[in-house]
Amino acid sequence: MESTANILKTIEQRIAALPLQREPQGLYEPIVYSMGNGGKRIRPLLTVLACQVFDADKVADAYTPAIAWEMFHNFTLLHDDVMDRAPIRRGKPTVPAKYGDNTAILSGDTMLVEAFSILHQTKSANFSKIAELFTRTAQEVCEGQMYDMEFEERADITENEYIEMIRLKTSVLIGACLKTGALMGGATDADAQMLYDFGINLGLAFQLRDDLLDTFGNPETFGKRIGGDIVCSKKTYLLINALNAASAQDRATMNDWLGRTEFDEEAKIEAIRGMYVKYGIDKMSQKKIEEYDNKATQILDKLSARGLEVSPLRELSQKLLNRDK
Amino acid sequence: MESTANILKTIEQRIAALPLQREPQGLYEPIVYSMGNGGKRIRPLLTVLACQVFDADKVADAYTPAIAWEMFHNFTLLHDDVMDRAPIRRGKPTVPAKYGDNTAILSGDTMLVEAFSILHQTKSANFSKIAELFTRTAQEVCEGQMYDMEFEERADITENEYIEMIRLKTSVLIGACLKTGALMGGATDADAQMLYDFGINLGLAFQLRDDLLDTFGNPETFGKRIGGDIVCSKKTYLLINALNAASAQDRATMNDWLGRTEFDEEAKIEAIRGMYVKYGIDKMSQKKIEEYDNKATQILDKLSARGLEVSPLRELSQKLLNRDK
Repeated sequence: MESTANILKTIEQRIAALPLQREPQGLYEPIVYSMGNGGKRIRPLLTVLACQVFDADKVADAYTPAIAWEMFHNFTLLHDDVMDRAPIRRGKPTVPAKYGDNTAILSGDTMLVEAFSILHQTKSANFSKIAELFTRTAQEVCEGQMYDMEFEERADITENEYIEMIRLKTSVLIGACLKTGALMGGATDADAQMLYDFGINLGLAFQLRDDLLDTFGNPETFGKRIGGDIVCSKKTYLLINALNAASAQDRATMNDWLGRTEFDEEAKIEAIRGMYVKYGIDKMSQKKIEEYDNKATQILDKLSARGLEVSPLRELSQKLLNRDK
Repeated sequence: MESTANILKTIEQRIAALPLQREPQGLYEPIVYSMGNGGKRIRPLLTVLACQVFDADKVADAYTPAIAWEMFHNFTLLHDDVMDRAPIRRGKPTVPAKYGDNTAILSGDTMLVEAFSILHQTKSANFSKIAELFTRTAQEVCEGQMYDMEFEERADITENEYIEMIRLKTSVLIGACLKTGALMGGATDADAQMLYDFGINLGLAFQLRDDLLDTFGNPETFGKRIGGDIVCSKKTYLLINALNAASAQDRATMNDWLGRTEFDEEAKIEAIRGMYVKYGIDKMSQKKIEEYDNKATQILDKLSARGLEVSPLRELSQKLLNRDK
C-alpha cells in the first residue's frame, strides 16, 4: 500500500509532466500557472486512495482519471474567478486578474477539453461508467454554480435549497472522485456507490464547516480574515437559517445591515454574529456538520468491517474536518 | 442514399430531442436558445454526408457524433460572443446580450460538457480515434481563437500566420466533422485523412471568400452591410496583404485610417478598398480561394474515380463557395 505522502508526490509529478508547453503560450501559460498554484490535490488523492481500498495493484492506472479530475477542478476555479471577479486565490493573483477575462475564459475552456483528453486515456474495463460519471458530475457542478449565482438575487432561500446547491457545487465532485477510484479498483457498483455517498457527506460537512469557520474560526489559525462572508453579505448556511429563525424585528435589523453599501465592517460582523449566537445558529450548524460527518464515518465503518483497509481515507477526512483554520 | 434535405430534417429532430428541459432553467434555457438559433447545420451535415460516402448503412449511428460537433460549434459561438462583446448573431440578440456574460460563460461550459456527453454515446469500432480527434480539434479551435485575439494587438502579422490562424479557428472543425463521418462509415485511416484534407481546403476557401465578400460583395445579396470589416479595422487576409504590399506612403495612409477613432465610414471604406484594388489584393485573394477550392475538388475527384459517390459533398461545397452573399 502506497502512503498518502508518496501518492501526493506522484500526483505532483504527473501534473508537472502534462504536455502543456505548447503554442500559443498566451493560451497555455495560464493553465500551467493555474495547475501549479499550490492546491492541496485533495480530489486526485481521493481517487487514488479509493482505488487502493479495492485493489492496490490498479493504483498505477488510477492516476490518469485522478489528474483529469484535478484539471476539471482547476477549470471550474478559473471560470468561477471570472464570474466572481475574484482578485486573489491561494495568496496569488487569479488568472483573470493576471491575464484578463478573455484569456481566463479561453484557457479555462482549453482545460475542460484537456480534462476530457486525459480522461479518454483511462485504461479500465469500467471506462464507460467513469466517462458517464464524469460528464454527469461536470453538468451538476455547472448547475450548482448557476444556483449559487441565482441565490445572490433571491431573499427566500430555504435550508434545503442551500444544501442542494452546495451538494451540486462542491460535494458531487468529491463523491465522483471517490467513485472513479472505486471503479478503477474494480469495485462493484454498490461499493462504488458507497464511496460516492461517503464523498457527498464528507463534502457537505466540509463546506458547512468552511462557512462556520469563516465567522467563528480562530483568527490566528484560519488564514483568511474572520467575518469575510458577513462583510460581503454572502448567503451562507448560517445567514439563511438566521434570517429564517429570527423575529420580525431582528430580521429587519439584519436586512438593514445586509442592504447597506457603506458601513463599519467590524460593527456589521459583530451585529450579524450576535444574531447567529442569539438564535443558536452556530450550534445548529455544528450539529449538522456532525450529522454529515457521522454518516460519512458509518460508511467507512461498514467497509472496514468487511476487512477493507480504509484508514488512509479516514485520516484524510478527519484532517479535512478537524482543521482549525 | 438519403437526400441532403432529409438528413437536415433528421438533424433538426435530433437537436429538438436533446434532453435540455432541465433545472435550473436559467442554465439550460440559453442552451436551447442557442441550439435553436437557425444555424445552417453545415457541420453535422458534413459528418453524415461523409459517412454516407463510405457506408450508407452506418448513417443512423453517425448522427450522434454529428450532433456532438454541432453542440461544440455552438459552444464556441457562445464564448466568442462573450469575448467579442457581440450584440447580435443571426439577427437575434446573442446569449451574453440576452442573458448576461456570467450565464453565457456557464451555459457555454455546460454545452461543452454536453458535447462530450453526446460524443460518448457514439457507437463505433473507431470510437477512440473519434474521441482523440474531437479533443485535439477542440484544443486547436481554442488555439485559433487565442491567435485571433493576439493578432488584434499586433501590427506585423504575415500572410502565413493569418492562414494558420483561420485554419485552426475554422477549418480544422470542418475537417474533423468530415473525418468523423468517414470513420463512422468505416473508412481507412488514409481515406478519413483525405476527407479531413478536403475539409481544411474547403474551410480555408470559405473563410477567405467570407473576407472578400465583406468588402467586395453585392450589397443586395450579401445580407450584412458591405465594408463592415474595414469600418472596424478587422485584420483580414485583404488588410494584412495590403499593408505588406503597399508603398511606405500608402501604408502610412492606411494606418492613419485604421488608427482613427472618429471618421466618415463611407470615406474609410472607399479609401481602404481603393488600396486593395490598387495593389491587386482582391485578385490575389480570388486566386488563393481558387487554389484551395481546386485542392478540395481534386480530393473529391480522386474519391469519385474510385467509384465512391461524392456528389452530395460536391454540391454542398459548391453551394458554400459560390454563394453571392
